[in-house]
Amino acid sequence: MLTLHHLENSQSIRVLWLLEELEYDYQIQHYKRDSATSLAPENYKALHIMGTSPCITDGALVLPETNAILDYIMDKVDETALRPDCQSSLRTNYLYWYHAAQASFMPLLLESLIFKRMVNKAPAIIRPIIRLVVKKVKENYLDMRLGKMLSQIESRLAESKWFAGDSFTAADIVMGYCMEVANVRVGMDDRYPNAQRFLTQMRQRPAYKRAMDKNGIFEPLAQ
Amino acid sequence: MLTLHHLENSQSIRVLWLLEELEYDYQIQHYKRDSATSLAPENYKALHIMGTSPCITDGALVLPETNAILDYIMDKVDETALRPDCQSSLRTNYLYWYHAAQASFMPLLLESLIFKRMVNKAPAIIRPIIRLVVKKVKENYLDMRLGKMLSQIESRLAESKWFAGDSFTAADIVMGYCMEVANVRVGMDDRYPNAQRFLTQMRQRPAYKRAMDKNGIFEPLAQ
Repeated sequence: MLTLHHLENSQSIRVLWLLEELEYDYQIQHYKRDSATSLAPENYKALHIMGTSPCITDGALVLPETNAILDYIMDKVDETALRPDCQSSLRTNYLYWYHAAQASFMPLLLESLIFKRMVNKAPAIIRPIIRLVVKKVKENYLDMRLGKMLSQIESRLAESKWFAGDSFTAADIVMGYCMEVANVRVGMDDRYPNAQRFLTQMRQRPAYKRAMDKNGIFEPLAQ
Repeated sequence: MLTLHHLENSQSIRVLWLLEELEYDYQIQHYKRDSATSLAPENYKALHIMGTSPCITDGALVLPETNAILDYIMDKVDETALRPDCQSSLRTNYLYWYHAAQASFMPLLLESLIFKRMVNKAPAIIRPIIRLVVKKVKENYLDMRLGKMLSQIESRLAESKWFAGDSFTAADIVMGYCMEVANVRVGMDDRYPNAQRFLTQMRQRPAYKRAMDKNGIFEPLAQ
């Protein structure tokens, strides 16, 4: 049986959410982050050389990497509306957001966390210098790209209920986690009413609620 | 007709390579990087809000994001061996490497470039401090992850000719560019004989050579 090795408050939430949306028959094994470092425990890191979350096992298979896992699970179920096929009018938007979430949005959010930690963890005496250099990188690159990404998201969600169109798809699951993290880490304020509406919508889905029940209250890492 | 807006020496190379592998009927529009800054020119950045490479247009559609473009093009051709289907024994490895290339490997390579530039562009007087802090981030995170990724690649390519198995797939196209960049930026030395073999193999493919002829000599950004 497929086992989700679920690291709390991590990208693993999306796999849990997908499994619940599909009412798929799965097992879950829970892993808690170290309370001091927020890192995954050793028995989680031992699952796969990369040691990253999410990770599933299925018989002899050990599979990490969010979108690979999502596609692997969707392969197992006969045609699902969660993955619009080539003939669907939702296909192009689906492809764009499904891939952009992991290859563009998520790396920006991760970099913003790395830079924040670089400042916070620097010895106090050199912290002002590090803060200055990081500020420059943020101005010239990171905040500019994140701003464009959020504008793009806002425009997209002004056009349709979900990312690919008016039906819910796996692109919303992949983007959904990024949106929760962006909400905490970047702040999605009044300039982004449609992005806020998306967050409310997704949190109301029964499958999302069941996934959150299994995760425990979701607390994206803020610093 | 599908138009590839080709920014030289960028991730766009993969789209060009795929189009050549498929002998797809397409147009190409060339864009040169600014010789001083290496940035994309303004008319390239105007194509799409994100301004990133690659980008294609097809009628009214403007589509950025490597893997979305590759899937979009593969959707247009009837079944291609470049994208193993759910029944294929290559499927799981295909999914893993196709997604890991863009969502895990590429972000690490990009971060290594950002950190290199952070050091190089810092005013000389504070450069030693920045170098020290960056060294710490590299030791604790970046180099560790890159090392694991390269080990994983080496193990995989010791088992089969290409990433998904013994047949060439789009996963090799996505990984191929990462491998060229890693070769320049991280250095893939004698510890990685199979990774080196992969680079030789891919460079010998007629479609790759045709793509390189259209790009001009490929020079991944090194700093």
